[in-house]
Amino acid sequence: MRNLKVCISYNGAAYHGFQRQNNAPSVQQTVEEALSRLLGQSVTINGCSRTDTGVHAKEFYFNVKIDNNIPCDGFIKGMNSLLPHDIAVHSCCDADDDFHARYCSKGKEYIYVVNMSPVRDVFSGKLALHYQGALDIEKMNKAARLFIGEHDFGAFCKAEAKEHLKSTVRTVTFFGVSQEGNKAVFTVRGNGFLHNMVRIMVGSLIYISEGKRTEEDIIRALETGDRESAGKTIPPEGLYLNRVFYD
Amino acid sequence: MRNLKVCISYNGAAYHGFQRQNNAPSVQQTVEEALSRLLGQSVTINGCSRTDTGVHAKEFYFNVKIDNNIPCDGFIKGMNSLLPHDIAVHSCCDADDDFHARYCSKGKEYIYVVNMSPVRDVFSGKLALHYQGALDIEKMNKAARLFIGEHDFGAFCKAEAKEHLKSTVRTVTFFGVSQEGNKAVFTVRGNGFLHNMVRIMVGSLIYISEGKRTEEDIIRALETGDRESAGKTIPPEGLYLNRVFYD
Repeated sequence: MRNLKVCISYNGAAYHGFQRQNNAPSVQQTVEEALSRLLGQSVTINGCSRTDTGVHAKEFYFNVKIDNNIPCDGFIKGMNSLLPHDIAVHSCCDADDDFHARYCSKGKEYIYVVNMSPVRDVFSGKLALHYQGALDIEKMNKAARLFIGEHDFGAFCKAEAKEHLKSTVRTVTFFGVSQEGNKAVFTVRGNGFLHNMVRIMVGSLIYISEGKRTEEDIIRALETGDRESAGKTIPPEGLYLNRVFYD
Repeated sequence: MRNLKVCISYNGAAYHGFQRQNNAPSVQQTVEEALSRLLGQSVTINGCSRTDTGVHAKEFYFNVKIDNNIPCDGFIKGMNSLLPHDIAVHSCCDADDDFHARYCSKGKEYIYVVNMSPVRDVFSGKLALHYQGALDIEKMNKAARLFIGEHDFGAFCKAEAKEHLKSTVRTVTFFGVSQEGNKAVFTVRGNGFLHNMVRIMVGSLIYISEGKRTEEDIIRALETGDRESAGKTIPPEGLYLNRVFYD
């Protein structure tokens, strides 16, 4: 058996997240169906992450055990001809037997894109959040530094998800905001992320820009786990899994 | 009665073109439905152009006669709250009684976007043509100059459309290709365009890049109207009405 490490990208607008669901289209199911057509065998893939409904990935890894000697180049071309237009395979290589896309990941980078054009951009409807007004990039950047380091991010986690976790302590290694034209791009890197963590962190910075939260609120949220001191969970359409780090 | 001049943009992916159709969604129908909800009266709009199924517009004008004293700013906000995410109103002003978005137009600019990334871009599936390989920008730019000026563009027109036209003579004032990252952007300006004209002109330049046509073929197509000397009609998804010129 070979263990393939495969990099894909996907536009999440039409999918109920990466993970296979009952009665709803998922990226996993779509990829597994293309794989079974290409290989003539039914396989299960291990994704590096779950992503929520409507969340995108510019770089997403999965591994899959296959009993087939198809060359990697043929695998890429074959998969791209079988997959729909909103999922693409970028690379494929043979990995060690014990490589697992999720458990071997050392960290991830997400970006969140906010479009600040006065009128919504009809070409990025499901690819960015439309925000009417100008966000205060400098103020948000200053507050973003508060998140860097090892913290209990319990206040920045979907309530139902928290119950199933042993720990809500994570390490954020970078969090910054840049302006590109009329877009604000939030970039965050860390060793792991809780459910909705990036969307609540970015939502908190937007509240900071709007004066609805202060830096003290963020510090309190990180110290006490108080969800109310953080900001709201912003919609999924601006969120992209951007990079996944391995040794 | 007022005569409003309104600028909109739309993502054409979900529409069977601008013009109202029987049994197929169109931009015109969608805008007219929003207008009738906003104004409480049924109105017909005059678009500056027809666009084909799947073609986009970054700038598209229509005029509409209304019997309502809504301020222009309220009109914009109201329409944007009633329109779906893929159509937006950018500006609105009172125009002279005899202003007509189509007949008063002095010219238009179209762009055609080709994505040359090795693997398709999952985020621009219906917003650009995916082309595997590198187009020869310089060679295409040189050939593009052949189109500039007043010519009989009969070879660059959909056959069925030609029969209904008095003349297929048009004037192209600019045609050029630039590379932006891994995108090739074709820009063409002229006083008027035949059905499929931009898509066949860009298709001809792509054939030039591929060596399937020569500059002599283009010259022959312009001189004789021979459709076979031109290139193929490329798909609509890369085409945008980009600007409309008025006095």
